[in-house]
Amino acid sequence: MKDRKTVILEAAARVIACRGVRGLRVEEVAAEARVSKALVYYHFKDRAGLLRRTLRFVGDRAERYTRGGGPGDAAPRGPGPGDLAPGARVPGDPLRELERRLLLEFQDLPEVRENSTAWGELRASAVFEPELREELARAGREWVREIADLLGPVGPAVPDAALVSAAERLTVLVEGLSTRWLVGLLPAGHAAELLRGAVAAEAEGLRRAAVRTACPAA
Amino acid sequence: MKDRKTVILEAAARVIACRGVRGLRVEEVAAEARVSKALVYYHFKDRAGLLRRTLRFVGDRAERYTRGGGPGDAAPRGPGPGDLAPGARVPGDPLRELERRLLLEFQDLPEVRENSTAWGELRASAVFEPELREELARAGREWVREIADLLGPVGPAVPDAALVSAAERLTVLVEGLSTRWLVGLLPAGHAAELLRGAVAAEAEGLRRAAVRTACPAA
Repeated sequence: MKDRKTVILEAAARVIACRGVRGLRVEEVAAEARVSKALVYYHFKDRAGLLRRTLRFVGDRAERYTRGGGPGDAAPRGPGPGDLAPGARVPGDPLRELERRLLLEFQDLPEVRENSTAWGELRASAVFEPELREELARAGREWVREIADLLGPVGPAVPDAALVSAAERLTVLVEGLSTRWLVGLLPAGHAAELLRGAVAAEAEGLRRAAVRTACPAA
Repeated sequence: MKDRKTVILEAAARVIACRGVRGLRVEEVAAEARVSKALVYYHFKDRAGLLRRTLRFVGDRAERYTRGGGPGDAAPRGPGPGDLAPGARVPGDPLRELERRLLLEFQDLPEVRENSTAWGELRASAVFEPELREELARAGREWVREIADLLGPVGPAVPDAALVSAAERLTVLVEGLSTRWLVGLLPAGHAAELLRGAVAAEAEGLRRAAVRTACPAA
């Protein structure tokens, strides 16, 4: 059985994906979770604490379905939706594995849409809710590190700063494409195509950086 | 003297940048503009009409300060803030001109911060306000076309679809970097560096695409 903390966090993510963070009241989340307001305060102290923990919860869920291969699924799963998300890990080819993980953000499944909508809304809310920024920065750093590590094997002796910059660009791009996809401004197939193009361009840039690093300046 | 429609739109942008779109009431905008609610309804029909026109207004302002060189300034201006925004147009070098325009989104000026905050918030709100999507799509297409045209001279005979894809990625990236910069997650100098890297990577990719287009398949 799920513990009640998880039930509250799931409810918070759902409410945020449906109605947004601005003006969100703890009562609404308690009602959605079918628990008392007091229990929400007991577990999360206040509204800011609830929002911060929801951000982390949503981030962890995204990590699960982009690493494992499917929402709520820690193991690789069968063929993904269309050409978007090949199901099997690609352990021998880090660049394909990177593409696969990033493309899993565009799975047209209700859980993924809800999770990404909540994430986008929490991220956008950081303008008005400063207490979200630290958690957002932490999640961003972790994601960038993960992507930078997958980019590492692309070229020998690529400086880490170049890997991190490429990873920062790719994560910003994925978030932006995801937001546009969620509101129907961009079909998932086109988002996938744009993302593949970016991965190819960054990989090529890193290979050139490796060559420049290896050669003494003229 | 400014007409009252402009005064209302300026007030709407200010209120949205400060408090967000969710829960925004027409009364707040009227109060901020020091006009009657009736006048707002007279000019914009309803809340949705006001939001749509504000989105366009904010987009037009951004176009003015990224094209001209400074907020509210149609003519090129003097040296920009630090290394971010060289003031003079670079007509002979389209890639530098492209960089310059994109970097002008990161000018640390109150008008630019307010305008970008309002834009980011209106964009994020499209998840909950479907009536914003058409205007958002239109503005997006125009911006992408402008950037694609600046990318055109990078290589001869680059297919237009490749230019448009590169432009789509760059605009998504600029928006995402701008959002992170506005909430203090990313220093402007680092955003500029990431953006320059992306412009270089895309330009290189387009040059290679041009070569592939020019050569018959093996």
